Parts: sequence; structure tokens; C-alpha cells
Amino acid sequence: MPDLWQDAMDHAVTLARKAGEIVRDALQNDLKIMCKSSSVDLVTKTDQNVEQLIITSVKEKFPGHSFIGEESVAAGEPCVLTENPTWIVDPVDGTTNFVHGYPFVAISIGFAVNKMLEFGVVYSCIEDKMYTARKGKGAFCNGQPLQVSDQKEINQSIIATEFGSNRDPDAVDKILSSMRKILCLPVHGIRGVGSAAINMCLVASGCVEAYYEIGIHCWDVAAAAVIVSEAGGVLMDVEGGRMDLMSRRVLAANNNLIGERIIKEIEAFSAVRDDEPEKQ
Amino acid sequence: MPDLWQDAMDHAVTLARKAGEIVRDALQNDLKIMCKSSSVDLVTKTDQNVEQLIITSVKEKFPGHSFIGEESVAAGEPCVLTENPTWIVDPVDGTTNFVHGYPFVAISIGFAVNKMLEFGVVYSCIEDKMYTARKGKGAFCNGQPLQVSDQKEINQSIIATEFGSNRDPDAVDKILSSMRKILCLPVHGIRGVGSAAINMCLVASGCVEAYYEIGIHCWDVAAAAVIVSEAGGVLMDVEGGRMDLMSRRVLAANNNLIGERIIKEIEAFSAVRDDEPEKQ
Repeated sequence: MPDLWQDAMDHAVTLARKAGEIVRDALQNDLKIMCKSSSVDLVTKTDQNVEQLIITSVKEKFPGHSFIGEESVAAGEPCVLTENPTWIVDPVDGTTNFVHGYPFVAISIGFAVNKMLEFGVVYSCIEDKMYTARKGKGAFCNGQPLQVSDQKEINQSIIATEFGSNRDPDAVDKILSSMRKILCLPVHGIRGVGSAAINMCLVASGCVEAYYEIGIHCWDVAAAAVIVSEAGGVLMDVEGGRMDLMSRRVLAANNNLIGERIIKEIEAFSAVRDDEPEKQ
Repeated sequence: MPDLWQDAMDHAVTLARKAGEIVRDALQNDLKIMCKSSSVDLVTKTDQNVEQLIITSVKEKFPGHSFIGEESVAAGEPCVLTENPTWIVDPVDGTTNFVHGYPFVAISIGFAVNKMLEFGVVYSCIEDKMYTARKGKGAFCNGQPLQVSDQKEINQSIIATEFGSNRDPDAVDKILSSMRKILCLPVHGIRGVGSAAINMCLVASGCVEAYYEIGIHCWDVAAAAVIVSEAGGVLMDVEGGRMDLMSRRVLAANNNLIGERIIKEIEAFSAVRDDEPEKQ
């Protein structure tokens, strides 16, 4: 039913834009900040309100669809991807940025059917950049087509990654050691805007050759994965092979050469899967 | 002669805007990239053309003034700050970003008289943000007043820094070790947009609490130093005490508390001074 998914995608764009307005308005006011897993894992009332707005609207318009959302999962909802049409939503990707007014905050809406991603919408709302992609139909930013970089030389590349919110000493060791090895290949630079979804959209835009991170969640990357892949890029696991949406690990690259070169330098580790039964 | 400096500042804004147009136009074309000190220290024809445009215009309008510019110094001109009114210019701050179309590239124009900074203009030309500050008159972005963050708790802060273009193993060790110690204080996050001038403008804007880096040059920070200080922030050396414009080291913070807390974690090292006689 391709028309139905186009309807869903149009609705996702409308919802992302509405959510973006709420986020921008909230930046004008004092934010109430709460902590989740640690003092650096933040959530605000805005995250929760925006997710509620999106859920309510989706349930009304597409009553049979399923929903995986960051704040719903935090509140105890299951995080399982079934065959059913499923909206995978991060209401505010880059909450730490949001809290500080750092200008990279995205609403991320991915959509999967039969466990395959069908479309992705990432709205970088402070920059007012609407990234969209539908399987087989290309990727766009504010309507302009996106294309990954054609760079094949790792030492002419910029790589994006993040320090993340994990402060476990072993994880921090591995995160920094990987950064060091990549930096000294050498690469032109290492960057990171503080939002997984926007980092991936920068891969799709050709501004950075690759982005990798361990510790992200399915709602951070589901939408942007479609955007990267429709812009001509590739998605992998940080140890090679296909990306597993629930594994909390992602590598998005402009091509296999750059992706596989980086994999050699990444000191991988595991995170508790998004669909781990103990978490349900 | 305060009016003369206001004239100079108005002229700096005009030049920065014209330079920004050239930089934006150049992004539409294929860039000719050259290397300076290493394969990751880049320069383009645009850097050189923009600096030439600024020098020519300044010499015509203010024939008695002196000039320190990144590309002039690279071409063998002296880098000495005298009592004479001096324009301190980075035609393209964030050249690596520029080469990749990564959206943070600035034209940075600082101005000193009697070795004291009088005004600063930083034009983040892809974002179209014009940051300006004149001593004693406040700091602005596109005409809106800027104010640093009032945060006093380091573990509620975001710190900006860069990996930089130094790939010397000892320097890389110290750069990463400092990042690790700051990350684990813990702080909310570490960011860096790839331009010293814009990182400092983000301190002035209150989006990050502090920025530090070793290896920058006087032309990267002269203009933004006025912007930080007029937005209520402080400038220090990375080991404490006053910032020395020629020392290649800078720490800009929202206040002394945050600045001094970070200094405790930074593993400082020295870089060859900008005004080192052997470089002249």
C-alpha cells in the first residue's frame, strides 16, 4: 500500500514541523531539567510533551500502527519492533544541546513495516532544516537532493562521533582510544554536533565522510538511517556487517571503503540492547 | 580618537560581510586545497584571496595601520604586535570545515591599539551570524545583545575544545587526557565546531560555558576575545593568569569559577609563540 506510507510520511513531516515550533518556543523559557540514568543523561518536560503530541496524533490518524518512542520506553512501554507498521520517534534528539541552547536539536521520526525502514524525517529545528527520505525515492534537505561525499581517502576525511553520556571508565577508555586512533590515521578532523540524527544527516549531506557511535538508541538513528542510505551512503555495525537497529551501535559512511577503514580503528564494546527482555 | 575606531569597526563589518559572500560563493565550486605545516593543516586559494581583499581595503582606508594576517604570516610577513593600530585577521577560520562544507566557517577581524584589543568582528558566514563587540560597549550577534551563561556548577556545563591539527603523539596524549578528565568531572558534554572564533562566540552566547585550546594563533582569537569579554566572560591562559595573545593558548569561560575549575584538569603544553623571533 505505497500511498498509505506516503500519507504517513507527509504526516510525519507535519508533526516534525509542529514539534520543532514547540522546541523553539521552549528555548525562550526556563527549562525544567530532570535526570534519567545519570547526572548527564537529561530529559525535559518538552521531550515528554512533544512525544505525547506525536503519539496522540499518530494514534488518531493511524489507529492500527505501533509506536516506539524514547520517553514512552523510559516510562516502561516495550521497545520491540514487530512486523506491524511502527513509528520510531525521538521527540528531542540532542536534549543536552537543547538544555544549553546549543543549536543542534532534532525531531526524529522513522517508520518501519515488516521490520524494514520505509521513511525517515529529521527536523533540525533551530537551523530550520527538514531532512526527509523515503525508501527508493532519494534524500532531501528542505527539498534539495542530498548526496554523500565521494571521498575514498581516509586521510582526506572528517569523521563525526560523540563522547556520549556514558561515563563508565572502561567505556570512556574505549571511546577515547578509538578517537585517538582515527585522529592519527590521520584524518582531517573529528567533529560531533551532539545529536546522532544530525550527525547522520551531515554524512548524507557530504559534510563529513562518516559517523559512528556506541550507546545510541533505535529512535536516535531509525529516521536518519533512511536519509543516509537514500543519499548513497552505507550503514554498518561498528565491527562490520549490517547495522542492527536494536544493538545501540551504528556506523554510517559515505562508502564501504571509508566505513571499513574506520572499523579497523574502533574499539567496540556492547551496550544493553534496546530490545533486551530484561528491559521490557 | 574614539570616532576613528568606530569608523574602523564599521569598515571591519563591511569587509567581513563581503568576505563571507566570497566564501559562500566558493563553496559552490570545486576548491583547490593546499597543505601548510602538515597533511591536515589546510589552506585554499579562498583564504589567500579573502586576506588580500581585506589588506588592500584596509591599507587604502587606513594607510597608517599595521596588519597581522594568517596568510601574510604564512608567506613570511612578521607577526609582531606593536603600539600601532593593528588589524589581526583570519580570512577563513575553520579552513578544514570550509573544505568539507561543514557549516562553521568564520571571517575573524580583531583590532588592537597600544597592544590592547579595541573591537572584534566574527562573521560566521554559512550561518549568516555577525558577531560584533567594541570595548566597553557590549557584544552582539546580528544586533542582539549577548550574555554568557550564569552557570557556576562545572557538572552542569558544556565545554568546547578541539582535537586541532597537531598530530604529534605527546601533544595528542595531552589533548585527549585533558578531554577525558574534563568529561569525567563529569560535565554535560564536550563539543567543538571546528572554528576557534565560533567556539568563543558560543561561549559569549551562553550555549557553552567555556572553550579552551592549545595551538591556536592570535588571528583565531583576537576578535572573539573582545566578544567574550564584552558578553561578560573571562579570558585566561590554560594554566591560569591572563591570556597572552601571542602564546597560542586560550581559555574563554563564562566566569572565573568555571574557568579555574577547568584549568585544574588541562594538561598544558607549549607551542612555538606567534611572535617567536625564529619564526620572523
